[in-house]
Amino acid sequence: MNNGMNHNLVAPGMDAELKLRSARVADAMAGKADALLIATNANIYYMSGRFFRGYIYFQPGRDPLYFVVRPFGLEGEGVHYVRKPEQIPDALRDLGYPVAARLGLELGVLTYTDAMRLRAAFDGSDITDATSVMQQARMVKTPYEQQKMRADGARQCAAYSRFAAQYEPGMTDVEFQIQLEYQLRREGCLGCSRVAGPLMEINMGSVICGANADAPTPYDFAMGGAGTDPSLPVGADGSVMKTGTTVMVDMNGNFNGYQTDMTRTWAIGDVGPLAVRTHECSRRILRELERMALPGVPVVALFDRAMAVAQEENLHEYFMGYTQHAAFIGHGVGIELNEQPPVTGRSRVVLEAGMTLALEPKFVVPGVGATGVENTYIVAPAGLECITPFPEELGLLQP
Amino acid sequence: MNNGMNHNLVAPGMDAELKLRSARVADAMAGKADALLIATNANIYYMSGRFFRGYIYFQPGRDPLYFVVRPFGLEGEGVHYVRKPEQIPDALRDLGYPVAARLGLELGVLTYTDAMRLRAAFDGSDITDATSVMQQARMVKTPYEQQKMRADGARQCAAYSRFAAQYEPGMTDVEFQIQLEYQLRREGCLGCSRVAGPLMEINMGSVICGANADAPTPYDFAMGGAGTDPSLPVGADGSVMKTGTTVMVDMNGNFNGYQTDMTRTWAIGDVGPLAVRTHECSRRILRELERMALPGVPVVALFDRAMAVAQEENLHEYFMGYTQHAAFIGHGVGIELNEQPPVTGRSRVVLEAGMTLALEPKFVVPGVGATGVENTYIVAPAGLECITPFPEELGLLQP
Repeated sequence: MNNGMNHNLVAPGMDAELKLRSARVADAMAGKADALLIATNANIYYMSGRFFRGYIYFQPGRDPLYFVVRPFGLEGEGVHYVRKPEQIPDALRDLGYPVAARLGLELGVLTYTDAMRLRAAFDGSDITDATSVMQQARMVKTPYEQQKMRADGARQCAAYSRFAAQYEPGMTDVEFQIQLEYQLRREGCLGCSRVAGPLMEINMGSVICGANADAPTPYDFAMGGAGTDPSLPVGADGSVMKTGTTVMVDMNGNFNGYQTDMTRTWAIGDVGPLAVRTHECSRRILRELERMALPGVPVVALFDRAMAVAQEENLHEYFMGYTQHAAFIGHGVGIELNEQPPVTGRSRVVLEAGMTLALEPKFVVPGVGATGVENTYIVAPAGLECITPFPEELGLLQP
Repeated sequence: MNNGMNHNLVAPGMDAELKLRSARVADAMAGKADALLIATNANIYYMSGRFFRGYIYFQPGRDPLYFVVRPFGLEGEGVHYVRKPEQIPDALRDLGYPVAARLGLELGVLTYTDAMRLRAAFDGSDITDATSVMQQARMVKTPYEQQKMRADGARQCAAYSRFAAQYEPGMTDVEFQIQLEYQLRREGCLGCSRVAGPLMEINMGSVICGANADAPTPYDFAMGGAGTDPSLPVGADGSVMKTGTTVMVDMNGNFNGYQTDMTRTWAIGDVGPLAVRTHECSRRILRELERMALPGVPVVALFDRAMAVAQEENLHEYFMGYTQHAAFIGHGVGIELNEQPPVTGRSRVVLEAGMTLALEPKFVVPGVGATGVENTYIVAPAGLECITPFPEELGLLQP
């Protein structure tokens, strides 16, 4: 390499952090697998602090082994180059590692073809699914990861502080979104967000204006939108932004490999009392959840309380959609935009300090648009720490 | 729905086109499967002309059945709502469809978990892999698809015509890339490109300047780049663009659900004779391949000829990378950026009229940067039709 980058696969100073993550993974593995073979992007990044193409073999009590396919030129302890995964079992024997009786693979992320290939390569091992092991390990963020996310949130808020100034009367929602993307990118957003699964295709986030808020989407986003093309039916639909409608901005962070998720809503002129009431109800829900979300509280209690508040205020028919309702009011976030735990009525997860929650109690007012606020929080011993602090009032865009 | 969009799952006027695609899929299935259950994004879009969340059951000789999970409200012949795939076998019986003896699933795209779930739901069928069936069907574009791609190429060229004007001396490569993204989005690029597999994460394309061209990448891109963050080690690295270096711009199309892929290279001031020679060699390779790439010609012949020309001109050590070499000089393109056939030394594909090829013979000159040109072509009876016509000379950016 000639570009002055560090050649060490594990960046200087990351050893202690990676040991902490390995310990978390080992805990999550207990009784489920003897070793893991990690092969998917987000988990490779979690276990090594960088993305490379290849595999990480992790046996609790020993240092991870990095089997790199590409790029050329990485160095360091535990780094071994392979051309193909079939070489890994022999390499393990040469390194004095026993064959795992139960080998965990990311069966919920790997393609069937890739999983069967790895299963065949490790034909002496029973294969178990390690998808939830890695989800569980990553669900509680280390102090270093929390710092990355706080830094991301601060940068996302800085970008949001310049969003309203991008509005010009007569713009389409797509034109406005493009200005926000441009602002985010200029402030250092990496642009490309990691998401789990195939059901979140969108460019850097979502701007939902007016009646488009009620267009149902096939995707797993809380709010919909028709999009501009049948290949990507989600988000801004190209309509001119109209007086008397709301503008919901849910543009992604991701300035440093970790993401924060936040939403703010603006009104173009007078949007009427129902939009204002629903927006204030969203803020009330957030305040209540911020107080109650202590370590030890079941996630389902947050969902139930949010639904109860919407019901108390007789706004439930607008809550999390109008024509089509989302079945969640929040989700974990970190390396991927959609991590564990989803905040649903079926959750069995209990809050722990260090978890992250993007809470997004939102409403759709037919004909007017979407309202509400989303913040990203870290679950802390005394309650939720908001890492996307930014004014939540329904902002005014002058028509 | 209240937003005036069409509720028909199959858009008006698309019936004949979808019948043509179904016929292509039926041909590709011959002897391999009795029916397909399509469940992944790009193939759902191909078989229906839109993206929805759900499944398409296709038995040759009968119209496709659309089992929709979301969005709410789609209508039309063959549209049936399901909550989960386990309901599909009963629905098929109710509709008078026989249980397929051999059911094709997209095992190379579906996760292991999803594939096993579908296998269990169809426990009366033998499961076969339909990944290559769909790849083969999609590899030859219908006349309608070709028109979409021509339109995409024209819009991409229009955007490229405004790229050089975005340059200002002293910019970083990331700043320049952001200007190009902004330009593309303002001209209608959807931003979010579909790619097959996990090995192409990047924001809307790549700008590679100077020495960064030789930084090896873990990804499947022809050229590398170190990126700005270890979570996404590819592309522009944040360096100031320097006099005496090249700027390779490989920004994606995708204005209409179909993509074209093109690359042009600019020089900042005098970049020396080797950069000029390699750039002209890339153009010579394209001219030779344009003439020889007739229907009936094996793809491997294109790869071999490109390598031979680089060798003849004694430029092979710079061809397709310097420190790390890519093993291909082009690829199919369409709904996804990386479709069949890859143009490699191992290809067994024979060219057919209607295939698309993005040919990208590129060079890396150490210390100076990447050079070369990429065009997207349609394989036509008389040779390649270039659908990204735009001046190919090494453009000059005034330092």
